[in-house]
Amino acid sequence: MINPALGVCYYPEHWSEEVWEQDAARMAEVGIAFVRIGEFAWSKLEPTPGYLQFDWIIRSMDVLGRHGLKVIFCTPTATPPRWMVDKHPDMLAVDANGRQKGFGSRRHYDFSHLGYREESARITQLLADAVASHPALGGWQTDNEYGCHGTTYSYSPAAKVGFQRWLAEKYGTVEALNEAWGNVFWSMEYNRFDQVELPNLLVCEPAPAHDLDYRRYASDQVAAFNKVQYDILKAKRPDLPVIHNFMGRYTEFDHYDVAKSLDVAAWDAYPIGHLAVSTEPEEVKRQYLRQGEPDYQAFHHDLYRTVGHGRWWIMEQQPGPVNWADFNPDPLPGMARLWAWEAFAHGAEVVSYFRWRQAPFAQEQMHAGLLRPDSEPAPAYHEALQVAQELKSIGITGAASKGRVGLVYDYQSEWAWDVQPQAKGFTHGAHVRALYAAFRRHGLDIDILPPSTTSFAGYDIIAIPALFAWNDELRTAISEFDGHLLIGPRSGSKTQNFAIPPRLAPDLPSNLLDLKVLRIDSIDPSLEIEVKGSGSVHHWRERIETKANVVIEDTEGWPVLVNQGKLYYLGGTGTKALVHRVVDYLIAEADLVTLNLPAGVRCRTRDGLRVYVNYNAGPATLTLAHDETGYVLGTAEIPAAGVTIARLATAG
Amino acid sequence: MINPALGVCYYPEHWSEEVWEQDAARMAEVGIAFVRIGEFAWSKLEPTPGYLQFDWIIRSMDVLGRHGLKVIFCTPTATPPRWMVDKHPDMLAVDANGRQKGFGSRRHYDFSHLGYREESARITQLLADAVASHPALGGWQTDNEYGCHGTTYSYSPAAKVGFQRWLAEKYGTVEALNEAWGNVFWSMEYNRFDQVELPNLLVCEPAPAHDLDYRRYASDQVAAFNKVQYDILKAKRPDLPVIHNFMGRYTEFDHYDVAKSLDVAAWDAYPIGHLAVSTEPEEVKRQYLRQGEPDYQAFHHDLYRTVGHGRWWIMEQQPGPVNWADFNPDPLPGMARLWAWEAFAHGAEVVSYFRWRQAPFAQEQMHAGLLRPDSEPAPAYHEALQVAQELKSIGITGAASKGRVGLVYDYQSEWAWDVQPQAKGFTHGAHVRALYAAFRRHGLDIDILPPSTTSFAGYDIIAIPALFAWNDELRTAISEFDGHLLIGPRSGSKTQNFAIPPRLAPDLPSNLLDLKVLRIDSIDPSLEIEVKGSGSVHHWRERIETKANVVIEDTEGWPVLVNQGKLYYLGGTGTKALVHRVVDYLIAEADLVTLNLPAGVRCRTRDGLRVYVNYNAGPATLTLAHDETGYVLGTAEIPAAGVTIARLATAG
Amino acid sequence: MINPALGVCYYPEHWSEEVWEQDAARMAEVGIAFVRIGEFAWSKLEPTPGYLQFDWIIRSMDVLGRHGLKVIFCTPTATPPRWMVDKHPDMLAVDANGRQKGFGSRRHYDFSHLGYREESARITQLLADAVASHPALGGWQTDNEYGCHGTTYSYSPAAKVGFQRWLAEKYGTVEALNEAWGNVFWSMEYNRFDQVELPNLLVCEPAPAHDLDYRRYASDQVAAFNKVQYDILKAKRPDLPVIHNFMGRYTEFDHYDVAKSLDVAAWDAYPIGHLAVSTEPEEVKRQYLRQGEPDYQAFHHDLYRTVGHGRWWIMEQQPGPVNWADFNPDPLPGMARLWAWEAFAHGAEVVSYFRWRQAPFAQEQMHAGLLRPDSEPAPAYHEALQVAQELKSIGITGAASKGRVGLVYDYQSEWAWDVQPQAKGFTHGAHVRALYAAFRRHGLDIDILPPSTTSFAGYDIIAIPALFAWNDELRTAISEFDGHLLIGPRSGSKTQNFAIPPRLAPDLPSNLLDLKVLRIDSIDPSLEIEVKGSGSVHHWRERIETKANVVIEDTEGWPVLVNQGKLYYLGGTGTKALVHRVVDYLIAEADLVTLNLPAGVRCRTRDGLRVYVNYNAGPATLTLAHDETGYVLGTAEIPAAGVTIARLATAG
Repeated sequence: MINPALGVCYYPEHWSEEVWEQDAARMAEVGIAFVRIGEFAWSKLEPTPGYLQFDWIIRSMDVLGRHGLKVIFCTPTATPPRWMVDKHPDMLAVDANGRQKGFGSRRHYDFSHLGYREESARITQLLADAVASHPALGGWQTDNEYGCHGTTYSYSPAAKVGFQRWLAEKYGTVEALNEAWGNVFWSMEYNRFDQVELPNLLVCEPAPAHDLDYRRYASDQVAAFNKVQYDILKAKRPDLPVIHNFMGRYTEFDHYDVAKSLDVAAWDAYPIGHLAVSTEPEEVKRQYLRQGEPDYQAFHHDLYRTVGHGRWWIMEQQPGPVNWADFNPDPLPGMARLWAWEAFAHGAEVVSYFRWRQAPFAQEQMHAGLLRPDSEPAPAYHEALQVAQELKSIGITGAASKGRVGLVYDYQSEWAWDVQPQAKGFTHGAHVRALYAAFRRHGLDIDILPPSTTSFAGYDIIAIPALFAWNDELRTAISEFDGHLLIGPRSGSKTQNFAIPPRLAPDLPSNLLDLKVLRIDSIDPSLEIEVKGSGSVHHWRERIETKANVVIEDTEGWPVLVNQGKLYYLGGTGTKALVHRVVDYLIAEADLVTLNLPAGVRCRTRDGLRVYVNYNAGPATLTLAHDETGYVLGTAEIPAAGVTIARLATAG
Repeated sequence: MINPALGVCYYPEHWSEEVWEQDAARMAEVGIAFVRIGEFAWSKLEPTPGYLQFDWIIRSMDVLGRHGLKVIFCTPTATPPRWMVDKHPDMLAVDANGRQKGFGSRRHYDFSHLGYREESARITQLLADAVASHPALGGWQTDNEYGCHGTTYSYSPAAKVGFQRWLAEKYGTVEALNEAWGNVFWSMEYNRFDQVELPNLLVCEPAPAHDLDYRRYASDQVAAFNKVQYDILKAKRPDLPVIHNFMGRYTEFDHYDVAKSLDVAAWDAYPIGHLAVSTEPEEVKRQYLRQGEPDYQAFHHDLYRTVGHGRWWIMEQQPGPVNWADFNPDPLPGMARLWAWEAFAHGAEVVSYFRWRQAPFAQEQMHAGLLRPDSEPAPAYHEALQVAQELKSIGITGAASKGRVGLVYDYQSEWAWDVQPQAKGFTHGAHVRALYAAFRRHGLDIDILPPSTTSFAGYDIIAIPALFAWNDELRTAISEFDGHLLIGPRSGSKTQNFAIPPRLAPDLPSNLLDLKVLRIDSIDPSLEIEVKGSGSVHHWRERIETKANVVIEDTEGWPVLVNQGKLYYLGGTGTKALVHRVVDYLIAEADLVTLNLPAGVRCRTRDGLRVYVNYNAGPATLTLAHDETGYVLGTAEIPAAGVTIARLATAG
Repeated sequence: MINPALGVCYYPEHWSEEVWEQDAARMAEVGIAFVRIGEFAWSKLEPTPGYLQFDWIIRSMDVLGRHGLKVIFCTPTATPPRWMVDKHPDMLAVDANGRQKGFGSRRHYDFSHLGYREESARITQLLADAVASHPALGGWQTDNEYGCHGTTYSYSPAAKVGFQRWLAEKYGTVEALNEAWGNVFWSMEYNRFDQVELPNLLVCEPAPAHDLDYRRYASDQVAAFNKVQYDILKAKRPDLPVIHNFMGRYTEFDHYDVAKSLDVAAWDAYPIGHLAVSTEPEEVKRQYLRQGEPDYQAFHHDLYRTVGHGRWWIMEQQPGPVNWADFNPDPLPGMARLWAWEAFAHGAEVVSYFRWRQAPFAQEQMHAGLLRPDSEPAPAYHEALQVAQELKSIGITGAASKGRVGLVYDYQSEWAWDVQPQAKGFTHGAHVRALYAAFRRHGLDIDILPPSTTSFAGYDIIAIPALFAWNDELRTAISEFDGHLLIGPRSGSKTQNFAIPPRLAPDLPSNLLDLKVLRIDSIDPSLEIEVKGSGSVHHWRERIETKANVVIEDTEGWPVLVNQGKLYYLGGTGTKALVHRVVDYLIAEADLVTLNLPAGVRCRTRDGLRVYVNYNAGPATLTLAHDETGYVLGTAEIPAAGVTIARLATAG
C-alpha cells in the first residue's frame, strides 16, 4: 500500500514541449506525487501502422521524474487511431438498434473483436518494453473507463459468434442450453449453437436467461480484454501496480471479475456530475447541487476498496465544473478538498485530480482543471495544495478500518433486475444504496462484500439487499454467521438460470427461514401502503407466508419484516422512513454503538482517526464522540464543505 | 352455442409427462370443461423440418379426455421454430425504422410473407389430419393473438411487393391510384405500381390515403392468413368451432374482416394489465388498481360478441398478477370470480383462465396461474371452483339480451384518426368508450354494431361516435331508422379515399341534417370552453353552420348539440360532464327506463337474469329494480369485488 | 421595391382548368396582386423523364394575367417526381440514424447530391426558357422552404464525400484540420481527408469543431444549390426579383449566405402554428392561443428584412387553422388582417396568403385557405379584402424606418450553442428574442444586423446577445462605435475553430473591456440566484473577474452587469425581470424616448406612420404619443386583434 498522496492527470501531447518543465515544477509545488499519462495518446505514439514514436513520451517522463513525480503509464487502447479502423473495419461496435458506431470520439471498439484484442496486446507490449525500466515509472493503468458510453454491449457479428462459442463452452450441448433458458416456452429451441441470436431487435423480450447469459458473456469479454494487458504489464514489472480506472454507477460488467487481473482498483469521482445525471429526487439534486450526494462517493469508495482487494485510488477527481451533464454547477469552495479527504478516510491511496490544465479545445474544453486554460490557478489548485499540506501534517496511513456492517453487492443482481424488473424503476443499485445510507447515517463504518464471500465473521450486521440467486459460498456464509443478518426482497427469488426456484423465494431451508413468497404485488412507487407503526411499503411488495416471527406488518396485515433468530427478512421496498426504521431496529437488536451526526455530515474511520465531512452548504456542529479524544484537524464547528478530523481513544 | 363453462390454458410440453394425469384430475375437480393446448408447441411438434412428433400431444389429449375435458387445439403458427427462419430468412418482419426483427421471442413472422403462409397451411393440415378425430377435441384456435407486439405492420420487401399488388388490384390503373391519393399535391404521382413505397421513413408524413390504404392492406393480410387455417380446419371438422383469441385495445386490423373466417371470437382479458398500460387518468388507475377499469371489459365483451357473430369466449382470463405491465398489482380477492361472471352476463360461452400453472421459467415466469409454480393452489384456483359451482346452481343459458342502445364501432375510423389526428391525443377508441360508459352507467344493455350494419331496427338509441366515412349500408340504416340517433364529431368528415367530401362534414343530405362543419378549432385538452348550462368542450371543436335546432351551445355561441327530428349531432369532444349531459338528454328524449346504480357497480342482463358486479374496493348497496323479482345469487349488499344476480320479472 | 400589396399561393394543377378563370376573377376582386404557382408541380410539368408538359401552366399564367395578376413562378425542385429517384437512387438523404429517407412526401433530396443539383439546374433552365417572357411573370421563387423537415443535414455517402472535399479545400493539409479540431485530444487524428467521418452515430459526441464544420458544410450546400437556380433565373430576366421563402425558427443553414443569391427574402408566417410548436411557457401558449406570440413575427420580419438586403415578403401567411401542429386553433377574427398590417409596418412588400382554396385531399387537407374546400369564402377572405382596401386608402410606401436599436443575429452562434450547450436548453434564438422583446416593449424600432456588419453608426444601442466568436468586421465595428453597446453572455467565448481563446471570454482587449470569464456555473433553469435590487440569474452564470465597473451584482456578490464606458457586459442569462431591468437601464443611459404601450400591444414605424397591433384577446387603449399627430386608421380604442395607425409629426 502507498501512503495517502495526490495525483493528477496530464496530457503532454496536448501542450507544447516547452511548458512541460514548468508544469512539472508546479505539480511538485502543489505536492502532487503521481502523474497519469498516455491513455489517449495512441495516434501520437503510432501515427501510422507500425511507425512508433515513443521518444516524446519518454522525454515527458524524464521531465516529470526530474521533479520527483511518479508516472502512472496508461495503455492507449481506449482510443485506437483512425488507421486501426481501416485495418479492422469490423472492430466497431454495433448498438442495440443494429447501427455500427463510427470513429470520431472514443471507445470505438468491440470487446468481442479478437483482432483488436491482439492489437491491444501488441501496443501494450511495445509500450511496456519501452518504458518499463524508466525510473519515473510508478505504475500502470489499463485502457480507460471500460464500458463508458454504453460500450460494454455490442450486437456485432463478432459479438454473435463470440456469444455462440461462449454458450457452447458453458452448456456443452444445445439441449442443455434449451433447458437452461426454458426455450420450450415459445418454441424458442435451437438445434445448433450457431443458430443462437443476440437478444436485441426481437419482437418482444427475450427469455430472461438468454438476456442474462448475454450480459455474462459481455462482462467476460471485458475481463478477458483487461487480462491480456495485465499479464503483459505484470510480466514486465511484477513490482508495480496495474490499475484500471472504473466509474460510478456503471455496472454493465462484473468489476470483481475484471479486477482479478488488477492490483489496485481506481474509480473516477465526479460527485456533482454524478448527482446531475442520477435519478435522485429533485430536492436532493437542489440540496447538494454544488456538493454531490453525500453517500454516493462513500459507497463507491467502499465498493472499490473491495473490488481492489483492499487497494484503491481515485484516478480522476472532479476539480470544478465538468462538461458532460445537462447542467454543470460550480462546486462550493472547499469541495475539491472535502472529496479528497473523504476518499482518504475510506482508505484511498491516491486521489488524482482530472486534469492538470483545462484543455481549450475538443470535447472537454468546458471541463475544469487545476489550472485554467490560460495556465492561471483554478480554485481547486489551492485546495489540492492544502490537502497535500494537511496530509503531511496529519500523517494518516494504513488501511481503512474494518466495518461493523457488511453489505453484499452483486453485479449479476444488477443485471437480473434490469432484465426483469417486474416493477418498473426498481434498481438493485438504488435499493442497495438506500440501505447503505441508512446504516451510514449513524456513523457506522461499512464494508461492501462480493457474492463470493465465504464468511461473514467479524461483522455485527450483514445485509443482503436483493441478491437474485444464491451460490454455495453465500449459503455457507449465511448458515455459519452468528451476527444479525438482513435479507431483502427478491433475494433468492431465482436460480442461476433465471428460473423461480422449486421451493419459491427466498429459497432458504426452513430451519434458517421458514418463509415463502407466494406472489408479488408491484405498484407504482407513488402509491404507498402504510405499515403499522410508521413508514410505508411501496413499489415492490411480497405476499409472504411464514411461520417465523412477524416484526412489522402493514395495515393490510401482510408481513413486512420477519425474523427467525438473528435472520431478518424484509418483504418489500419501503419509503425512506421504513428503511430507516428497519435498519434502526437491526442496529438496536445488534446493540451497536452509533454516532449522533448532524444532517449532511458523514464520517469514516482510518488509522485511529475519524474524518468528518460536511456536505451541507452551511455550517454544522459536531459533538465529540464517546471514543474520541479531540480534533486533529478543524473543530467541532465544521463549516460548509468543511473537514474535521478527530483522534480515537483506541486506534481502529 | 355452448352453455357457460370454464376453461384453462395448458402447456403439456412445459411439464414432465408424469404430472399430466394429476393436472387433468385437478382441472376436472375445479369444474373446468375446456383445455386449450398447443399454440406455442411447434418446436416440439416438428423439432426439425419435416420430422413430426405428434405422439406426445395426442397422449396429452388422451389424458385430458379421460377426465372429461374437451381440448381446444391451437395451430402453433405464432411461434415458428428457429429452423423455419433458416429456411425463410426473409419471413421476419421489418419495423417502421427499417430494422428486421429477430428470432428469440414470438410472432416473428411477416403476414405478407407467402412462403410462411404456406408453412402455416402445411402444419395446420398435418395437425388437423392427426387430431381431428380425437374424441377429446372440442374446437380449434388459429394462431395466437394476431397483431400482438405491433406485428400487424411490417415494412419488409415482402410487404412492399404485396402492397403494390394489392393496390394494382384495387385501383386497376396507376392514374386511379394517383387520383384517389391526391398525389398531384406534392408531385407524388407514380408512373407504375412497382414504384409505390411503403409509408415509413419518409421525410414527412405520407398522403393520408396512402397511409390508410397501407393499413387496409395490412389488415387484409391478417384476414387472409387466418382464412387459410380456417378453411383447412373447417373442412376437416365442420362441426367444431374455429376460434381466434383477439386482444383488448389492439385495433390495427379489422376484426370483423378476420372473423369472417371464424365461428367464435375470443379475447384475452387482463383487466389489471390493460388498465396499467392504458391512458386512463392517474386517479382512475389508482381507484381500480386491483380491479381493472369497470367498463373496459364489458366494452370488449360486447364488441367481440358482435365480431363473433353472437358467439364469443374469453380464451385467456387474468387469474392474478401478470408480468407485462410496468407494475403488476395483485387483484382484489374475488376479482377472478367477478370477471368471469361479468363475461357470462355479456354472453360468454367459455371463460378460460390463463394459465393452469405458473411457469417458473422463461419470459412469463412472473405471470400467475391457477396453481403456483410449486403446484399449490393460487387464490384464483378457489375462485374458479366457486364460479363453476355457481354456474351449475344458477343454470344461466342462452344469448345475452339484445341491447336498447347500439354503438357503431369501426376499425377504419381508428386508423383514420390515427393517420390524421389534427388534435393530438384524439383516439377513436377513447371517444367511443366514453359514450359507451355514459350509457352503461344507467344500467342499459348496449350492443356494438359494425359499420356494415344495414338496419338499426329494434334499438331505441343508436350512436355513431366518430365514423370517418359513410358507406351505403350505413346511409340506408340511418335514413330508415326511427329511433334516436346521435352522430358524433368527425363523422362523415372524409370520403373513403380520405378526402374532405364536397358538401363538407358531416356529409349528410340536408333533409336528414342541415348542417356543415366549416372548420375545426382543435386545442390542448387542458383548455376548456364552457358550455351554457353545464359541461365543457375541449380538444376538438367544430365550427358549425346549421339551420337545425341548437340544443346546446357553448358560451361563445357556437352550436355543440344540434337536432333535426330524432337525429342529433354533437360537434365536439367534451368533458365527462358534457358527455353525460348529452347522453342523459338522449335517454330522456327516447324515454328509456334506467337503473340507479351505485358508483362502481355495473350490470348486464342475460337469460332473464341481471348480473351486478361491484368494481369497488368497498361494499355497495343495490336497490331492487322495477323489473326484478329478487336475488338468485348474493344480496342487495354487494361486497367489494362481489357479484349479485337478480331475476327479472319477464325474461329478457 | 414594390409598394405594399397582397398575394396568394395557387395550385392550378390541383383544380379543374374550368375553375381557373373564376378563381382569378375572385382573386382580383379581393385585391390580390401576386399569385405564386408551380413549386410542387414537377410531376405535372415533366411526367416522365424529358417529357415536358408546360402548356397547362402557361395557360394558367394567361388566365391570371388576364385578370391583372402577376405571377411568382417557382422552380419545382422541392418535390422531384418518383422517376427521379429511379434515376438517382442515391439522391435521397440519410438521417442521423443512418436510415435513407424514402419517396412519398416532399424535400426528398440531398443537398450534397451533385446529380440532383444538375437536374435542378436543368428543370430551372427549361422552365425559365419557357415562361421568362410571359407578360404575367412578376418574379421567381427558388425551390420551397429550404431545410423544412430537417432536410439541411444528410449523412449519406454523397454528404461524406462532399464534406471531405470541402475540408480539403478549407484546410489544405490534414495536419491543419487535426490542429483546428484539436484531434490530438482523443487520438482522433486523421492521416488523410478521405478518412474523415460525418459526425453522426459516434460512441459519444464528436469534437465540437468537427460538428461545427459539418454544419458549415451543410449550410454551404444549401447556398450552392440555391445559387445554381438564381444564376439561371437572373441571367434570363435581370429585371425580375428572385425570391426564396424561408421559415421561422429554422436556423440550420446561414440565411445570410443563401441570400447572397437572392434579391428578396421571403418567409412563411404561421403565427399560431409557430407558437404551438415552440418552447414558450404554457401560460404564453394559452394567452396567445389564437393570435401567436406578439414578438415572434416582428423578430422574423426584421430578420428577413436584413437577410433580403432591405427587401422582403411574406410568401405564405396563415389564413386560418393549420394542420401541422399538435393542436390547431382557429385564429381570433381579425388576425389575418393584423398579421398582414404588422408585416407591412415592418417593411414587407407583399403579404401572400397560403393558400387560395383549402385542398380537400392529401397531407394538408386540414389547412385553411381564403376559400373553403367548397369554394365558399373562409373568414380570411373577407379580412384580406379589407387589408387590400385599407392599403389603397392609407397609401403606405417606402422602406421601414431605420431602428434605434440594432441586434446582432448570427446563425453560426445558433449552431455553436447547439453543438455545445453546456447548459441544456440554452438556445441562441430564445436568448436573442428575449432581448428583442425587452427593447420592443418600449415601442422602439429594432433592426437585426448580421455578423458581417462593419459599422454600427446611426444606432443608439447595439446588442450582441451571445456571439460565439468574433470576426474582424465586428471587432472593428465595436471599437469604432460611440453608442451604447451591450455584449451578452458566451460572447467571444470561442475562436472560429471552437476553442477557448487564449485570453478567455469575452476575448476583448482590456482597453475596451477589462474582464475575464473564469468559469461557468450552469444550473437548471428552475433554480434562480437573486440579483441585488431585482431579478434573478439562472441557467447560465459566468464567474467574472473584472476591473470594470460593476453595475449589477447577484446576492452572492458575483458581477452580473459590468460596464466600461458605454460598453456593457452581461454575464449570465436572467429571468424576464432581469432582462427587462438590464435593457431599461441601457435605454435610460442612452437617453432614448420610449412609448408607453399597453400589454399585448406592439408597434412599428414606416413611412411616417406608426402601426399599432393588438395581440390581446380583448381591447386596449392607446395614448397618442409625443410624436403623433392623430390616427389615420382606427382609434385609440383598439379592439382585440385590432390595428390602429397613427401619423407621425415628422416622417420617420
